[in-house]
Amino acid sequence: MRTATCAPFTGETANSGEHQTAQCQARVLYADTDGMGMVYHATYLRWFETGRAHYMRIRNMPYSQVEKSGLSLPVVEAHAEYLKPARYDDLLEIKTKVADVGRAQVRFEYVICCGGKELVRGYTRHAVVNPNGRPTRLPETLREALHGPPGAD
Amino acid sequence: MRTATCAPFTGETANSGEHQTAQCQARVLYADTDGMGMVYHATYLRWFETGRAHYMRIRNMPYSQVEKSGLSLPVVEAHAEYLKPARYDDLLEIKTKVADVGRAQVRFEYVICCGGKELVRGYTRHAVVNPNGRPTRLPETLREALHGPPGAD
Amino acid sequence: MRTATCAPFTGETANSGEHQTAQCQARVLYADTDGMGMVYHATYLRWFETGRAHYMRIRNMPYSQVEKSGLSLPVVEAHAEYLKPARYDDLLEIKTKVADVGRAQVRFEYVICCGGKELVRGYTRHAVVNPNGRPTRLPETLREALHGPPGAD
Amino acid sequence: MRTATCAPFTGETANSGEHQTAQCQARVLYADTDGMGMVYHATYLRWFETGRAHYMRIRNMPYSQVEKSGLSLPVVEAHAEYLKPARYDDLLEIKTKVADVGRAQVRFEYVICCGGKELVRGYTRHAVVNPNGRPTRLPETLREALHGPPGAD
Repeated sequence: MRTATCAPFTGETANSGEHQTAQCQARVLYADTDGMGMVYHATYLRWFETGRAHYMRIRNMPYSQVEKSGLSLPVVEAHAEYLKPARYDDLLEIKTKVADVGRAQVRFEYVICCGGKELVRGYTRHAVVNPNGRPTRLPETLREALHGPPGAD
Repeated sequence: MRTATCAPFTGETANSGEHQTAQCQARVLYADTDGMGMVYHATYLRWFETGRAHYMRIRNMPYSQVEKSGLSLPVVEAHAEYLKPARYDDLLEIKTKVADVGRAQVRFEYVICCGGKELVRGYTRHAVVNPNGRPTRLPETLREALHGPPGAD
Repeated sequence: MRTATCAPFTGETANSGEHQTAQCQARVLYADTDGMGMVYHATYLRWFETGRAHYMRIRNMPYSQVEKSGLSLPVVEAHAEYLKPARYDDLLEIKTKVADVGRAQVRFEYVICCGGKELVRGYTRHAVVNPNGRPTRLPETLREALHGPPGAD
Repeated sequence: MRTATCAPFTGETANSGEHQTAQCQARVLYADTDGMGMVYHATYLRWFETGRAHYMRIRNMPYSQVEKSGLSLPVVEAHAEYLKPARYDDLLEIKTKVADVGRAQVRFEYVICCGGKELVRGYTRHAVVNPNGRPTRLPETLREALHGPPGAD
């Protein structure tokens, strides 16, 4: 397992990084750990969701609002690389970035750090689905919110 | 913590026991354990659900069928007593019993054992709710299925 | 299901309440919900852990420190009453209180509210266990921290 | 999302398939679903663990035995593609294959199907770690068990 310092996303300039990232925290519970004494690997997907929800919320486009408009963004692909383990009571930094916004899909990237060290990297890819469960085009307002800086509120 | 052998439910005669109980198994995954090296206490509520679903299925009344009829049985109370810990890879016996079927609620009781030893006892109490989310009367067919012996198929 | 406003713990005076309670928040993720469109009942036990950990941390006695001293506080009983459902994206208030500190056990009580309405009430009872897994006496420093007000830091 | 029939692993001949695959089942609980009415995406990583544990158990090399020998196989990478959703009460087929056994790592592949349709494909990559948490060489007995056919018992 390679050790990495908790750098910004690869290839990200300071400016674009400010625009298209969000950062929040999570504290490791016993509920998150497993019998090896470290965080169970599937738990990180939950924190990816925490990061993604936070990213959208601070752009004044909480995911619950997307759903009220009749759309959903189901996960169609998920990936995680585990570099170092997190342990009970660790305070984690969850960094989320929108990596790609396509015609009918979105890709988020995540870095989870603790004490300045990268623990886990990953991404999720999401389809855009209408109320009938059919793939559909990403609405312009949602595209702009995903691409834009955090909101003013 | 008291140690108890994995006895039938208290006050249960052999005959009634056969009628109103169900037994199934679960293998402990790492996903179920926590950093103390034993099963996380909330995981047992999941196995209670496993037991409850199994109880209803073998009476030819799977919970999915109850839902198709428009009713749901949300948990309104849950209780668990933890006597001994389960550990990774343990093969658990989940014993489920219908303890009470009221006018508009049902109570299931559970005993989870391993190697003939009782690990956890508990119960869940369920309301009967119609499609508008209002408490409603338990239909007679469901009452009979809950009270009756496993089905023939 | 009865509806209740999010009152302080029963029988609690303003003063004692300030001393022996803690309050924190949790945002409902999709990970916490189930196919009925509301929070899965076992998820609340996780938030009880969140509340308990917060209660101890703000008294400068994080649970990880208890463990470093060689003791653990395994859950030996858990109880929850579900009054109203929480839904995706709800911002929950988790109120935690130490209800009883015995010679060798501790009991926490929890109320989870949203928008001023009580959703779930419950408690957990914990043994005090030494490194050999044997019940042991609660150390005086831990007893004082549990009984006392939040710390100064 | 493409629809695929539940074919054997790509490029797998009938013979090698028999040798290096395992199949088991899981029934979808409410605990596994989310408020979108389908299985929460992280739950599949749990079923990957179910498949992996089953694969090793039927080769008379349960993971708990690997641990007793002092080794562990932590997940260092996980990937999943979600083709179609699973829903409450679905009976899933979990197909597991050892895709690669390296000097100090193992890769498992998974296909989860329901009713003959592929729902999810994925893989996990595992390091081999000694009791000090250092990467170590895969023991020959474990290599043989992973490569071999199910055991006789």
